[in-house]
Amino acid sequence: MVFRWTIRILFIDTDASGRIHYTSLFRYFEAAEIEFFRHIDSAHQYSELGFPRVHVECDYRSAIRCDDVLVIEVSVGRLGNASIDLRFLVLKDEVEVARGKVVIAGMDRSTQRARPLPDVLRERLEPYVAAI
Amino acid sequence: MVFRWTIRILFIDTDASGRIHYTSLFRYFEAAEIEFFRHIDSAHQYSELGFPRVHVECDYRSAIRCDDVLVIEVSVGRLGNASIDLRFLVLKDEVEVARGKVVIAGMDRSTQRARPLPDVLRERLEPYVAAI
Amino acid sequence: MVFRWTIRILFIDTDASGRIHYTSLFRYFEAAEIEFFRHIDSAHQYSELGFPRVHVECDYRSAIRCDDVLVIEVSVGRLGNASIDLRFLVLKDEVEVARGKVVIAGMDRSTQRARPLPDVLRERLEPYVAAI
Amino acid sequence: MVFRWTIRILFIDTDASGRIHYTSLFRYFEAAEIEFFRHIDSAHQYSELGFPRVHVECDYRSAIRCDDVLVIEVSVGRLGNASIDLRFLVLKDEVEVARGKVVIAGMDRSTQRARPLPDVLRERLEPYVAAI
Repeated sequence: MVFRWTIRILFIDTDASGRIHYTSLFRYFEAAEIEFFRHIDSAHQYSELGFPRVHVECDYRSAIRCDDVLVIEVSVGRLGNASIDLRFLVLKDEVEVARGKVVIAGMDRSTQRARPLPDVLRERLEPYVAAI
Repeated sequence: MVFRWTIRILFIDTDASGRIHYTSLFRYFEAAEIEFFRHIDSAHQYSELGFPRVHVECDYRSAIRCDDVLVIEVSVGRLGNASIDLRFLVLKDEVEVARGKVVIAGMDRSTQRARPLPDVLRERLEPYVAAI
Repeated sequence: MVFRWTIRILFIDTDASGRIHYTSLFRYFEAAEIEFFRHIDSAHQYSELGFPRVHVECDYRSAIRCDDVLVIEVSVGRLGNASIDLRFLVLKDEVEVARGKVVIAGMDRSTQRARPLPDVLRERLEPYVAAI
Repeated sequence: MVFRWTIRILFIDTDASGRIHYTSLFRYFEAAEIEFFRHIDSAHQYSELGFPRVHVECDYRSAIRCDDVLVIEVSVGRLGNASIDLRFLVLKDEVEVARGKVVIAGMDRSTQRARPLPDVLRERLEPYVAAI
């Protein structure tokens, strides 16, 4: 299973090259992540559990321009004991234009220490674990 | 008196017009404000007093481009009982290219209510009040 | 007439105060403007006419937080010969939380000089001119 | 050899977690890259050669907060025929807090096709190639 999220690139996302500034995709990965967690009824930013990013990466295949409509497919690369490896496939007209990975780690907001993923969250994420 | 702060426009500040995206100047107004408060030994973000923005504005006179070196002159337009009207004059090669105004209001961080400016802060700001 | 555009505030829009960073609203004003022009069938960024911003401002009434759903109402304050004064009313649960103004000026992209608004654009904007 | 660039984290770089938003580091990697190229007298954004990003990544080790002063050490991981693998080590009080990698590819601005690195650029970059 994947979760699909559609966005339209804004003028503010571009730079003087006439194309999207590469950091803008991370903004949309964050939006897609939040909607994905909302979709599986686990809007994580409300809980006592925070999810700082420990690793992020992105590969860019083709130019993305203002007003492009992109589909972001969210899936899970690996579920660790206290971490989630989220994958983002970015499609334009059904062709891959970029691919991202964001590893987030469960952290107790009050102690600021690592904390294992709750079972209920793990269960809701498992259908999205992809063979990558 | 004015406080001068020099910046260089980054590629990320531009948009597909080839010029600076207009919101980027606000980023530099914030940087100039922080350095101004540090300069008068009142780095306000550390105190129990917060300063949410209640009004901001900017006029743009000329195009600003990547790598332009700008001088931002910070002064005070008006000192209210609980608010500060900060002015930002943006110069490129000593010619005005933009002009901004940011009104911030003193707020007690714990109660989230308005709070008069401390006398010591008022004294340090007064030399920068400009005849506008 | 007004054009309504609904957005949800992202985590990336916030700052360490726990509330929206004030510049984020300008990002959404831009998105609302683009959708407004698309709605009246005048997606201006494609034409030979550019619209640099000559003045922007915003008043902030109440705190806006991550995940807030906001309605932005777009109307036109005044139609000049070569400029458009756009107004943005920001509502949360039907209560005003902010109010913005963005004045854009028609510019010929090739000559970079001012250019009067085309009649067809003027006609499409007129129903949105508000008594302000 | 490494090139060192010092920055101070701004309030606008933070998010509601009270710490830096992870995308802000990419902004500073870009600034450090531009200053690095200026330092070796190869300010690449002026030439007929563009450098779109093909891969970026970052590992985050410790929290970074508003007003932190960070040193970014820039070096070169690998010099390809038409690509440069830039490395960014981020230090706070001489301790690593993050580590980034940005792979840029030489592109002819007029044809938008890949183009080998000019010899003069390759010579200036070679002293910064690190054993990684």
